[in-house]
Amino acid sequence: MIKETHFQKELEELKENLLKMAAMVEKAIRESVQSLVRRDSQFAQKTFDGEDRINKMEIAIDEMCLKLLALRQPMAADLRFITSAMKIITDLERMGDQAVNIGERAISLNQEPQLKPYIDIPRMAEIAQSMVKDVLDAFVNSDSKLARSVCERDDIVDGLNDQVFRELLTFMMSDPQTVTRAVHLMIVCRCLERIADHATNIAEDVIFMLDARVIKHHADAKENG
Amino acid sequence: MIKETHFQKELEELKENLLKMAAMVEKAIRESVQSLVRRDSQFAQKTFDGEDRINKMEIAIDEMCLKLLALRQPMAADLRFITSAMKIITDLERMGDQAVNIGERAISLNQEPQLKPYIDIPRMAEIAQSMVKDVLDAFVNSDSKLARSVCERDDIVDGLNDQVFRELLTFMMSDPQTVTRAVHLMIVCRCLERIADHATNIAEDVIFMLDARVIKHHADAKENG
Repeated sequence: MIKETHFQKELEELKENLLKMAAMVEKAIRESVQSLVRRDSQFAQKTFDGEDRINKMEIAIDEMCLKLLALRQPMAADLRFITSAMKIITDLERMGDQAVNIGERAISLNQEPQLKPYIDIPRMAEIAQSMVKDVLDAFVNSDSKLARSVCERDDIVDGLNDQVFRELLTFMMSDPQTVTRAVHLMIVCRCLERIADHATNIAEDVIFMLDARVIKHHADAKENG
Repeated sequence: MIKETHFQKELEELKENLLKMAAMVEKAIRESVQSLVRRDSQFAQKTFDGEDRINKMEIAIDEMCLKLLALRQPMAADLRFITSAMKIITDLERMGDQAVNIGERAISLNQEPQLKPYIDIPRMAEIAQSMVKDVLDAFVNSDSKLARSVCERDDIVDGLNDQVFRELLTFMMSDPQTVTRAVHLMIVCRCLERIADHATNIAEDVIFMLDARVIKHHADAKENG
């Protein structure tokens, strides 16, 4: 009984750390895009500093999961939860890398006159941040409805990305002098789109995991019924 | 003793399945790009058919890993190997998705006159395929040297991607009629670059895993020495 309670406490701690790591990634995305929008490269520097903390957090959670697997030998749903957590932190860490890419592009862009007002990019960033937050909430709270809403938001991000992409192509075609800046901005959009893709991949796994459990429950109920 | 032997056999089976899944992904990349180069959309159809097999393989290997974790309760290096395998198949599945994206673009491109001879794209595809093959070989054989060579090839793919990107921008700027086709080709390159990124991510994990073991061995040796 003591072992069980202890294990539950460890699982709670794992969940807290996952949410903490997600918050770090959200912050990194926000700061990288602020660096661009406010034309202030100091925010990019914050993103770079944050990356190190994100990487360390990934390693710490990974070790924690390995320990839980080795020492607690969890079964069924707990086992699936822990192995999923290990996959999710890989995605979170890669999102952090994308934020760093955005920060790097922002620093280059801040050295030249602004090509256009940034409207869709901060919008994409906001949606991407909300996806990161919500997909982790969906995971730790087994909320498949919330996970589904994350998948839906991916289409909005893709739509905005296509829109900005076309707009930037128009700039490039009408004035070759804009090409370098437009390409930087395209890459910023691509980074945000990738972040949204990572969140969607996690959301799909969460849905699959929860559905599998539902199907399994039905099968168990049938066997017992 | 019997349990140990059985477990070793299961691990061998896991390794075989990982290599099989990697071969499926390699095939998907090859067929998707052949569809483009040979201007034959039947190859794209093969990629689409292959995706279903790749997805099923991912689920099968994932289940296999969960079973090994639950029933065999592996420790240390075996535990790390199995959880890494679960992360790797996620990457492999996403590479399969990228091959499908390439196939879709190929179908669109095959309906219009060819914009330019495809030289760098098949080259990128070949390197990406070699990266998929080698990183899985590196993983199952604990070969950090091979894993490092995969990381190095990522730079070549990125370089080719930048080269094609610039070339396509020139097309777009000189003739607006080429924009749609150029964008399709940019996306094909981006997909190949993402496949290479996935392979590199796996390679980095393999190196990290092997280095951690080396460091741990040193520490153990010290403790015992």
